[in-house]
Amino acid sequence: MTHKTYRRVRFYDTDEMGVAHHANYLRWFENGRVEFLRAIGITLNEMIDDGILFPIVEISAKYFHPARFDEEIEIETTGVAVTKAKWEFSYTVRRVSDGEVLVEGFSRNVFTNAATGKITRLPEKYFSKFPAA
Amino acid sequence: MTHKTYRRVRFYDTDEMGVAHHANYLRWFENGRVEFLRAIGITLNEMIDDGILFPIVEISAKYFHPARFDEEIEIETTGVAVTKAKWEFSYTVRRVSDGEVLVEGFSRNVFTNAATGKITRLPEKYFSKFPAA
Amino acid sequence: MTHKTYRRVRFYDTDEMGVAHHANYLRWFENGRVEFLRAIGITLNEMIDDGILFPIVEISAKYFHPARFDEEIEIETTGVAVTKAKWEFSYTVRRVSDGEVLVEGFSRNVFTNAATGKITRLPEKYFSKFPAA
Amino acid sequence: MTHKTYRRVRFYDTDEMGVAHHANYLRWFENGRVEFLRAIGITLNEMIDDGILFPIVEISAKYFHPARFDEEIEIETTGVAVTKAKWEFSYTVRRVSDGEVLVEGFSRNVFTNAATGKITRLPEKYFSKFPAA
Repeated sequence: MTHKTYRRVRFYDTDEMGVAHHANYLRWFENGRVEFLRAIGITLNEMIDDGILFPIVEISAKYFHPARFDEEIEIETTGVAVTKAKWEFSYTVRRVSDGEVLVEGFSRNVFTNAATGKITRLPEKYFSKFPAA
Repeated sequence: MTHKTYRRVRFYDTDEMGVAHHANYLRWFENGRVEFLRAIGITLNEMIDDGILFPIVEISAKYFHPARFDEEIEIETTGVAVTKAKWEFSYTVRRVSDGEVLVEGFSRNVFTNAATGKITRLPEKYFSKFPAA
Repeated sequence: MTHKTYRRVRFYDTDEMGVAHHANYLRWFENGRVEFLRAIGITLNEMIDDGILFPIVEISAKYFHPARFDEEIEIETTGVAVTKAKWEFSYTVRRVSDGEVLVEGFSRNVFTNAATGKITRLPEKYFSKFPAA
Repeated sequence: MTHKTYRRVRFYDTDEMGVAHHANYLRWFENGRVEFLRAIGITLNEMIDDGILFPIVEISAKYFHPARFDEEIEIETTGVAVTKAKWEFSYTVRRVSDGEVLVEGFSRNVFTNAATGKITRLPEKYFSKFPAA
């Protein structure tokens, strides 16, 4: 399953090279991930209320073209591998005006018990929301 | 009382104008405030462990000259008014190379009980650390 | 004239107090300002192409209530005083769910020549876009 | 060659999970990279003045343990592969108090001509600064 969300590159996202600083894409991957989850009925606040956290354990990104101030970008988020032990998502960030792929990325997160900090498994009530489940 | 701390302007602090983005100074005021407090024996982690939070309720800044990538800046933090109800600090950010004043700022924070979110008073154990107290 | 724009509080906007970090509101004021200007036909990229920059010289904010992760917020931007020498805007950030005012702010920016860094005046082509002009 | 730099985790670096947000590590890798380069006699400002930019084309990070507010961290930066076409660095972020490895990362950047945006080669004057060269 794939979900698309959109945002503009803000002036505060740019750096002295006149393009969006590369660290911002990890934030935009987060935008995509949170909206993907919302679209299938999972909100992180419900997970937090259930005492489940979702730390990122791996991130990667390849940068092909820069995003510039005020451009609209599309963040396409795909559920790559979803189990009760981890979520893996891939991301494709495109410039909306011409569809050019700017950045591709990947994230893996696990689940921890907020009280103990220990690794935990994703409860069925969340897992069952994923279409592939 | 006054305390000085130092940092460099990082590439990720800059924006497309080629200078540090104005929102970053609020983060640098925080650097200055935390180090001022550490210098008098107060760490925010101890306050958090005591269930006391310290939300900012007012901020202001005047920007005279821009800070540029890789410049060293000095953040001078002064305790302006310190009571058990609030802390007020002022900040002067200077370019180290020539002492030029870049930005002047001000912050006021109050204290809240982390459990209830309600306004609370600063315990004597912290208040007494301030030289002026 | 007043313009409203909307965004969600992102996880990366939050801090350890569980609320949006206070420095983020300056970024959201920027969101509001840029969208206000777009709504009257001014884009900052056109100004940059014309060699005009728009540095912030004064900012202030009062914080009444915190914004929390995933909440939708409204940024209402008002042109307070607009001349060829400066722009002054005020901002009211509200929680969309109940209209509660979270933060009020103010910014003043001037105009500089990108090549020389010197203060300049806003060209008539931009000034005339403001309804009040 | 390896270079170590140090910083504290700031309150604004934390998120609602009470730990440093994962995107911040890319900024800390940048800290490490810039200081590694400074240590061998390369400043990015000199490269910018020479019309050479250094866009990141690939980033990755593995997160083992979280960094918490006010902890001192060490960023160890290693030049992995340095040619006139690209720089590859690896990073190990450790908690200073006990040496625990928190995050490992990697970056690759290329060089572009600031005027044309085209890929360019690193001039000999910079390349020759690397000990391995």
